[in-house]
Amino acid sequence: MSKKAVCIMSGGMDSTLGAYLMKERGYEVIAVHFNYDQRTEKKEREAFHAIADTLGATNKYDLDIGFFKELGASALTDRSIDVPVDGVEEGVPVTYVPFRNGIFLSMAAAISEKEGAEVICIGVVEEDSSGYPDCREAYITSMQESINLGTKESTNITIEMPLVHLKKSEIVLESLKHHVPLALTWSCYQNEDKACGVCDSCRLRLNGFEQAGEKDPLDYAID
Amino acid sequence: MSKKAVCIMSGGMDSTLGAYLMKERGYEVIAVHFNYDQRTEKKEREAFHAIADTLGATNKYDLDIGFFKELGASALTDRSIDVPVDGVEEGVPVTYVPFRNGIFLSMAAAISEKEGAEVICIGVVEEDSSGYPDCREAYITSMQESINLGTKESTNITIEMPLVHLKKSEIVLESLKHHVPLALTWSCYQNEDKACGVCDSCRLRLNGFEQAGEKDPLDYAID
Repeated sequence: MSKKAVCIMSGGMDSTLGAYLMKERGYEVIAVHFNYDQRTEKKEREAFHAIADTLGATNKYDLDIGFFKELGASALTDRSIDVPVDGVEEGVPVTYVPFRNGIFLSMAAAISEKEGAEVICIGVVEEDSSGYPDCREAYITSMQESINLGTKESTNITIEMPLVHLKKSEIVLESLKHHVPLALTWSCYQNEDKACGVCDSCRLRLNGFEQAGEKDPLDYAID
Repeated sequence: MSKKAVCIMSGGMDSTLGAYLMKERGYEVIAVHFNYDQRTEKKEREAFHAIADTLGATNKYDLDIGFFKELGASALTDRSIDVPVDGVEEGVPVTYVPFRNGIFLSMAAAISEKEGAEVICIGVVEEDSSGYPDCREAYITSMQESINLGTKESTNITIEMPLVHLKKSEIVLESLKHHVPLALTWSCYQNEDKACGVCDSCRLRLNGFEQAGEKDPLDYAID
């Protein structure tokens, strides 16, 4: 029986590459996706299912989390806060969802314990990213220790974060090298038809393609 | 403005005492309750609201988490697994819900960050309890560090676990001393009318009252 990796997959480029890397390392992929009333929930879910199928995931968890909508407090889930479109700024942006990865990793830990998985894979990127505190290596390493202390003795989980020190351009190049289906991924924070091209997530993605000297297969609403 | 404590409250005796202790220390109580399709969900929710009102909670979060039902894997949420009634045994029991407190604490962290709370209070009991790995002090201490690493620089949360080293009999005596409304609390894992008296949770509670030489105000289905 092959070893299992619980892969947290948003449907975006980073977590897709992460899952592909786990597959290449010989893990059976258990694909996990969270819907949390984010603006592009429908599009991200579609991307998740399409990508999980290309990975041959042995199990898919497509989970609804009402919590973040009830909490509000982020431009991604609270329609009264605009998604910034004027460029990536310093500091924690208004698209930050409080401790989102903490909640995702905790649920992934519960799934791993049930499934007998050894690995959780999360596609966090520390430097060349949005400035979210729950995307830092120090946090993820600490969370791994917490998860192992808070689960059964027989549960021993390693959290893999293979992209944490990559730049976006390196993620593009690695994705191409590993035949990641980039056309199936979705990164835009605000649109579900054509990607807007101006939210932080689109800007970071487009910048990565430009620096890599490659063309993004997605259509954008801007030229 | 007084300091805020996010109190995770199941409606049971332990977390109720925890919240009362926070109130006594001068914190404004933000009461948080999780419904997760556990067998006694309705009864626990009623208990939570009644207790939160006696505490004068300034905000109440009554949150539905469908996740554990989708996950299954515990006698509390999976109706195909019986709740044990023959006595508390060694090891992790089938009522264990994988990493439940990890998920609860992560959501409490998100709430704390939004509310600007300094404290999360959780009513875990380590020794004289059900043998759940996510009720141990070492785990909670580690989780506190993870939460502070994974949230904004300005967020600094202390997780209080004032009952962690108490015996159940001490919890009963402390509850009486601090005028905790024990008649409003609910501990039974399987009934919503009269407490069964024979599940692990009832046994631990009744044993606590007996050792304290006190009478439980609840009605039980057994004599």
